[in-house]
Amino acid sequence: MAVGDIAMPHMHVVKGVKIGVTEAYVRYPNRRDLVIFEFAEGTNVAGIFTQNAFCAAPVHVSKKNLETGNIRYLVINTGNANAGTGSIGMENALKMCDAVAENSGISSNQILPFSTGVIGEQLPIDRITQAVPKAFPCDQTWNDAAHGIMTTDTVAKGASEIFEFDGISYAITGISKGAGMIRPNMATMLSFVTTDMPISETIVKKLLKESADQSFNRITVDGDTSTNDSCIFAATGQAGGEPIQNEQDPRYAVVKEILFRVMKRLAQLIIRDGEGATKFITVKVEGGKNTQECCDVAYSIAHSPLVKTALFASDPNWGRILCAIGYANIKDLDVEKVQVWLDEVQLCQNGGVANSYTEEAGVKVMSKPEIIIRVHLGRGDATDTVYTCDFSYDYVKINADYRS
Amino acid sequence: MAVGDIAMPHMHVVKGVKIGVTEAYVRYPNRRDLVIFEFAEGTNVAGIFTQNAFCAAPVHVSKKNLETGNIRYLVINTGNANAGTGSIGMENALKMCDAVAENSGISSNQILPFSTGVIGEQLPIDRITQAVPKAFPCDQTWNDAAHGIMTTDTVAKGASEIFEFDGISYAITGISKGAGMIRPNMATMLSFVTTDMPISETIVKKLLKESADQSFNRITVDGDTSTNDSCIFAATGQAGGEPIQNEQDPRYAVVKEILFRVMKRLAQLIIRDGEGATKFITVKVEGGKNTQECCDVAYSIAHSPLVKTALFASDPNWGRILCAIGYANIKDLDVEKVQVWLDEVQLCQNGGVANSYTEEAGVKVMSKPEIIIRVHLGRGDATDTVYTCDFSYDYVKINADYRS
Repeated sequence: MAVGDIAMPHMHVVKGVKIGVTEAYVRYPNRRDLVIFEFAEGTNVAGIFTQNAFCAAPVHVSKKNLETGNIRYLVINTGNANAGTGSIGMENALKMCDAVAENSGISSNQILPFSTGVIGEQLPIDRITQAVPKAFPCDQTWNDAAHGIMTTDTVAKGASEIFEFDGISYAITGISKGAGMIRPNMATMLSFVTTDMPISETIVKKLLKESADQSFNRITVDGDTSTNDSCIFAATGQAGGEPIQNEQDPRYAVVKEILFRVMKRLAQLIIRDGEGATKFITVKVEGGKNTQECCDVAYSIAHSPLVKTALFASDPNWGRILCAIGYANIKDLDVEKVQVWLDEVQLCQNGGVANSYTEEAGVKVMSKPEIIIRVHLGRGDATDTVYTCDFSYDYVKINADYRS
Repeated sequence: MAVGDIAMPHMHVVKGVKIGVTEAYVRYPNRRDLVIFEFAEGTNVAGIFTQNAFCAAPVHVSKKNLETGNIRYLVINTGNANAGTGSIGMENALKMCDAVAENSGISSNQILPFSTGVIGEQLPIDRITQAVPKAFPCDQTWNDAAHGIMTTDTVAKGASEIFEFDGISYAITGISKGAGMIRPNMATMLSFVTTDMPISETIVKKLLKESADQSFNRITVDGDTSTNDSCIFAATGQAGGEPIQNEQDPRYAVVKEILFRVMKRLAQLIIRDGEGATKFITVKVEGGKNTQECCDVAYSIAHSPLVKTALFASDPNWGRILCAIGYANIKDLDVEKVQVWLDEVQLCQNGGVANSYTEEAGVKVMSKPEIIIRVHLGRGDATDTVYTCDFSYDYVKINADYRS
């Protein structure tokens, strides 16, 4: 069961984006598992991808095609990740593009392929290429697309906002998928975010990187980084108006804030739907010398199975939190200055339990479905935040059963 | 249930080592939870300790007292780790030493204290100091000691060997405890290993470091590094003969091999008894440029919750193994050269599934209680090995219930 508010909002139409969704029987029959995005000519597209050395075949192809530019289609299958599939996998990723090219008249290298699902099995490529024509004409909704990219997700994930400049209304609308194997750089996480605002290619890239760093690159379910994670941001420009060409454009900061909010929402939805998650946890680390050490401490806590099982059990075992801070390898950390809070309840001060702390208050706050673990390192002004979930029986169940 | 052969062997007596075990009611009534080791005068003692910044009060005291040297006693409680306990915790660790000093006439700074159990609660120090006299005279067995240091362990852990030089018979005998929060540098792991062979202080330190690096520092249950882990090696010299003074002594290599075997056994017993473990996994990485990158890859696999749940499920999901190799951050890894085997079954070659692989063979080997995951990186001659266990429902259950 996903945690907290996971409702799909009204998904505002993005001019210049068309969506096709169909059933290809990639892994299971009778489910929508193939999604195509069609972008208007002139759309600027940027992407960021997994850092995993075993990145999947479609990641290789997408990276290469993005270099050429002028991207017009995305083609996405769920059910099979086309990862660890060698040269046949590369051929199949290209065949996915070819199939879209044949049905659209667009060149294959203007198409980006994406796959998610089981690693290490070959795509049923014939079923996919046969299904591609059924996705045309691309006349379906963002909601359909959000469902069509799900794997172990229990809910479809979307975020959308509208805003206005100079009398023109713009939308930023996106979807994401992912429930496990989620951690920075990114995870079996796919996300596709678009706007109809005109934005130059350079600024599209910059906006994507900055927003993803603080959203998709700040979440973790289990610490496993997938072979397939990809995040795409596309600006079609079809709503009209002058394009944003540089950061000095007063619209830049506004758009950046909205994009960040949309991406943070999409990233947090992945955690709220984390495999077996019963709690949504924000780990906020303050008082560091620099952002990196705050990030390291936050991930050390967010990855600790002992912290995560204590969260599942609603056990205010603050010793496990201190312990995780202690093995984050922060040079010359003065443990006497470390403070820890669960929401407003101070757990630790001076390297031990806080004077004001009572077990009763600890249990009460730990029983909430959404908890902020706040750490102050007492050695500077830097801060960073990571989002995670707890670790339950169901995590084991889901991942022990995933292939069956 | 511990995995495989976990039987306590015959624990050979070590001349110059006496053992006292009693009940102090640290956490639970009616259980042996206080252990005292008494060493003969002239015993050389070395210790290695957790790298966690929040190391426990007894770790601070033990490190300090070891510097002075001439250690005569170890005093160990289970049930409470005396970690995250601030200045009161420091006082209590010293009081444990004082209590032993009062009962033995030995100076407090010749005594090393150790604690294991729940983090962040104050020791019931009065109950401990009142129980210390009951441990004297120290006339109990290694078996009693092995039981007296258990926490979530389901079996008492011991290893012992005898050997002979120049007509003199020597013993190396030790115990360990630990079942979770186990990873390099070390874990809520305590281990006490002794010999009656005469060995100089320098060589005792060297032997301990070398043996622990390849044993206690190569195991992981859940990736959490504890505040309390400590490993002690003591040589009483009471069996007689000339002391080993340097590595050129022909006995050095022989003793090193036996000590390594004893420590590896004690370390592996911790994994066999890993919290919720149903399988004992050896991760052997070969063909690396250097030992460090082999170690990094091995730990990346051994820590992956997705690999560990697949092992629990006996699911030969080799994609998860490749994926874990891929995010170990090995620079310029050529994935085409990576090969992976489960025991003798080759899973992967050329960055994908091996030609010879069949799912039937994969399932068969994954169903075994002891499995060797062997990875060849294809870029050098270095090798390293790490031991771990699978990740089961019971891991979550044990750690969600630990404090209750």
